[in-house]
Amino acid sequence: MRERVIVCEVGPRDGLQMAKSRMATGTKQAWIAAMAQAGVPEIEVGSFVSPKVIPQMSDTDVVVRDAVLVPGLRVVALAPNLRGAQAAYEAGAHRVTIPVSVSEGHSRANLNRTPAEQVAEVGRVVEWVRAQARPMEVEAACSTAFGCSFDGVVADEAVLKVAAGLASAGVDMVALADTVGYAQPAQIRRIVGAVRREIGDVLEGLHLHDTMGLGLANALAGLDCGIRSFDAALAGLGGCPFAPGASGNIVTEDLVFMLESMGFDTGINLDQLIDCRRFLAEGLPAEARHGHVAQAGIPKTYRAQQGLGGGVR
Amino acid sequence: MRERVIVCEVGPRDGLQMAKSRMATGTKQAWIAAMAQAGVPEIEVGSFVSPKVIPQMSDTDVVVRDAVLVPGLRVVALAPNLRGAQAAYEAGAHRVTIPVSVSEGHSRANLNRTPAEQVAEVGRVVEWVRAQARPMEVEAACSTAFGCSFDGVVADEAVLKVAAGLASAGVDMVALADTVGYAQPAQIRRIVGAVRREIGDVLEGLHLHDTMGLGLANALAGLDCGIRSFDAALAGLGGCPFAPGASGNIVTEDLVFMLESMGFDTGINLDQLIDCRRFLAEGLPAEARHGHVAQAGIPKTYRAQQGLGGGVR
Repeated sequence: MRERVIVCEVGPRDGLQMAKSRMATGTKQAWIAAMAQAGVPEIEVGSFVSPKVIPQMSDTDVVVRDAVLVPGLRVVALAPNLRGAQAAYEAGAHRVTIPVSVSEGHSRANLNRTPAEQVAEVGRVVEWVRAQARPMEVEAACSTAFGCSFDGVVADEAVLKVAAGLASAGVDMVALADTVGYAQPAQIRRIVGAVRREIGDVLEGLHLHDTMGLGLANALAGLDCGIRSFDAALAGLGGCPFAPGASGNIVTEDLVFMLESMGFDTGINLDQLIDCRRFLAEGLPAEARHGHVAQAGIPKTYRAQQGLGGGVR
Repeated sequence: MRERVIVCEVGPRDGLQMAKSRMATGTKQAWIAAMAQAGVPEIEVGSFVSPKVIPQMSDTDVVVRDAVLVPGLRVVALAPNLRGAQAAYEAGAHRVTIPVSVSEGHSRANLNRTPAEQVAEVGRVVEWVRAQARPMEVEAACSTAFGCSFDGVVADEAVLKVAAGLASAGVDMVALADTVGYAQPAQIRRIVGAVRREIGDVLEGLHLHDTMGLGLANALAGLDCGIRSFDAALAGLGGCPFAPGASGNIVTEDLVFMLESMGFDTGINLDQLIDCRRFLAEGLPAEARHGHVAQAGIPKTYRAQQGLGGGVR
């Protein structure tokens, strides 16, 4: 039995929000359905934010309502506050993810709140969601957990404080996000270990960017510490509108190649996943499409490596 | 005290041999001198091969004779056979590195010999070098140790056999090369561990390519196993003329960023290193220049991370 690792595709949210042009709703829906068809188990399909701030997300309600009809797909929506979380619930999302910046500078720029105020907002979301008829998972994503383009170095203690506050607020899961891509592997191991000691398995995922080219090395460091859930974006689309210089998320295709080659089971068919890049070529022709495996082609050793297994060690 | 990791720049050899055009000898010399000035401790400056096969290397003799005059620089030259090693010795190289393909297909295509025949050739090189007045290090690089574009999967046992043969032949050091970039981190750990058990610290370095985007994750896996010497190429230049589909070496700038951020000491000034890319822009304008850190800029957290230390754990 190969060990399962969850890959959550965030391209339709984190990728598209940075795009210069807008992807048509129909293309977005077809793209999401095709990725689910390729075996992607979770997709963050959009965010319930002001369409004036991020017009690319103005069709999130329609997209969520459509995506929850895709068989087997876990549909995630981002919401920065209670109002957004309520909209995610009404649309039928299986999970809402709330960003909580660890650094003051990013928190102020991205959310216009202090980290402590946003932790309190997450508490209100949890309370409201728990009172509803339908269960919906509440995730909190600790933005700028490994560094901030505004504040520079982020103290480990600040991450621990926010993570502990979120666990106390009763979220189902916490993710640590390298929003601007400043993380390095030793830091990932140090902070993931410390947060695990603080909140245990409530720390579930890593959200990594490839700004400095260290994205997959950081994912490996996370794997080594027991992380089994990773965000990634097809073709490495994405960034953060308030983090100058931040480039895209780690590339889903390359992450899946690494995980499957190491003997982990992602449930994703890599050929089919790579084929999904055509929706980006058609729907967002001006955006750069990254990814080594898609460019070089899946090597002939891939199937054999999958069979060999081996996992982290 | 930060722990030392050696970065050996192989761009002037592995990078340039794949270039469509030729870099002028004077530019090559200035580039090498500038990298040494930036603190790069070792540079593979060329290869003593037939200029008919690889015309970009026809000035290797001149380049080696010039490079050994650069203060503090360890000058490495590749040679596929005894005759090349003799030329490297005559030119004053500090180290000769001999490629030995682990896979039959690559060995045949690249060297027109079987792996066993090439191990025997390395034995002749060692014997000849030891009989000379001046000491010169002899390194053997096990090509296609993690997979081959001709033969596909390469058995661990084949790597062990070649490595053991090279250690018996008396080489100073062995490197394992992911010539075509098929390696994955679990495999790196498995094979490095096995080779270490077989030949101990004679296994010194890893030569990694970024074909599938796993280059730095593989470097991290090597670091975890105690490897403290890595080849890399400025701007990720390079490939292998007989391995279809292979793209460049891991990017020196990104590797240095990762190592220094993790608290290792490379002795390299990253700003100065990035500045060396201008020799590629000027001397080989048609070649793609890769590298995340050079594109995104060194983040403001870099100096602080260096200070924090931490190493692998």
